[in-house]
Amino acid sequence: MTEIPKSHPRYASLVARERVADGVKKGFTSTQGLIAQGRGEAFDYLLGEKTTPSAAKATRAAAAMLLLAERPALSVNGNVAALVPQEMVELARALGAPLEVNLFHRTEERVGKIADLLRSLGAKEVLGEWPDAAVPGLDHARAKATRGGIYDADVVLIPLEDGDRCEALVKMGKKVIAVDLNPLSRTSRMATVTIVDNIVRAVPNLTSAVRELSGLSKGDLSKILEDYDNNRILHQAVEEIQAHLEEQFKNT
Amino acid sequence: MTEIPKSHPRYASLVARERVADGVKKGFTSTQGLIAQGRGEAFDYLLGEKTTPSAAKATRAAAAMLLLAERPALSVNGNVAALVPQEMVELARALGAPLEVNLFHRTEERVGKIADLLRSLGAKEVLGEWPDAAVPGLDHARAKATRGGIYDADVVLIPLEDGDRCEALVKMGKKVIAVDLNPLSRTSRMATVTIVDNIVRAVPNLTSAVRELSGLSKGDLSKILEDYDNNRILHQAVEEIQAHLEEQFKNT
Repeated sequence: MTEIPKSHPRYASLVARERVADGVKKGFTSTQGLIAQGRGEAFDYLLGEKTTPSAAKATRAAAAMLLLAERPALSVNGNVAALVPQEMVELARALGAPLEVNLFHRTEERVGKIADLLRSLGAKEVLGEWPDAAVPGLDHARAKATRGGIYDADVVLIPLEDGDRCEALVKMGKKVIAVDLNPLSRTSRMATVTIVDNIVRAVPNLTSAVRELSGLSKGDLSKILEDYDNNRILHQAVEEIQAHLEEQFKNT
Repeated sequence: MTEIPKSHPRYASLVARERVADGVKKGFTSTQGLIAQGRGEAFDYLLGEKTTPSAAKATRAAAAMLLLAERPALSVNGNVAALVPQEMVELARALGAPLEVNLFHRTEERVGKIADLLRSLGAKEVLGEWPDAAVPGLDHARAKATRGGIYDADVVLIPLEDGDRCEALVKMGKKVIAVDLNPLSRTSRMATVTIVDNIVRAVPNLTSAVRELSGLSKGDLSKILEDYDNNRILHQAVEEIQAHLEEQFKNT
């Protein structure tokens, strides 16, 4: 990777970019993943490249939902593998949940490389290489899922997922937690809980919240979810972007 | 290129993406160009993927400025070459101005490929392959410029340019017209006239405006520029994004 000085004002953003470019070189991220990373950079810039209050609330709700789940599962695609592989392994460990590799532009080679990467980082259970079920309503390649993983999970975390797949999982009756920097995307609107935040911040924050809330009773966890309104959170995220735009325009 | 049905709701955006991916394959766009394209997609989405009133005003001012110029020059980088090569050649023809290839990640091979592309599309004068001057204040590779082109131009069009180079050109006393989808970027703020629009719309619009205004007297053209306030235009662009966000949130 290119060396980036830590003092650079956009250090985190440049490191993330290098990681995705490196993921493409190593063969677990698709070329389309670079364009997706660029879109993410722009939305993150509009949020001020920080975890906003609405994202913090959504992260807490997501942690409660994962702790209440009977069979949680965590989805990993090429950009997630490039950006937060270790962090996803740690989240899976904190929850005792499987990781499932799930690619938009699926090739068996990329699935294998990502699964190997996750195992090399200590993941206990990595699925996705031998899918044995199909998510209804998606075309053949996109529908692939695994029993014991996403296919029969009650709560699924889908960082950086597309709208069709998010919708199809919700239609199966699952609770879906999305991580998506665009509060207006179909994924953001379809999900049960949407964390509008950069995954490089959201995944470690989610692991911390899971650890912090793990001592709570089911009743207390349920209370967190009763107070949660995803549409209100998305509107708050839009307002945070609007406010940041105005502030940036005035300050610089 | 992948076939995209014209009926697709995001046809223009997907075609642009394919063009940049194709530019990478053909060797005139850098891999970084894919990330830049993704950033552009996000900002264009926030504008509603249309030319806004503020962009239309800026385009008219830019046309007047180019018509009043004694030595205009038009800069072309890898993404511009991928997205609007024919349109840049037409703008250059309407103005009788040279095109100059100017890359952020310069390699002689990429400069040559882009120059060949522009000539194959009918460009009369393509500079950049044999730079003979340096823009003060930039490091060696980034400073390269050509006499008779950008180096001694009085008005320079820089679509998709970075902030440092925009600032350096302004410091040389040039009038700089930027095309940039981010109204808060340093390029947008440093430029004399900033068109906050997608180049696939902005360049043809600019050529039309040049043709439309070409019959005006110097006095009438100057009047258009006297009424122009770039800071006000940028603020209007920010407000257009804020309004579009709110509208999208309500409508869908």
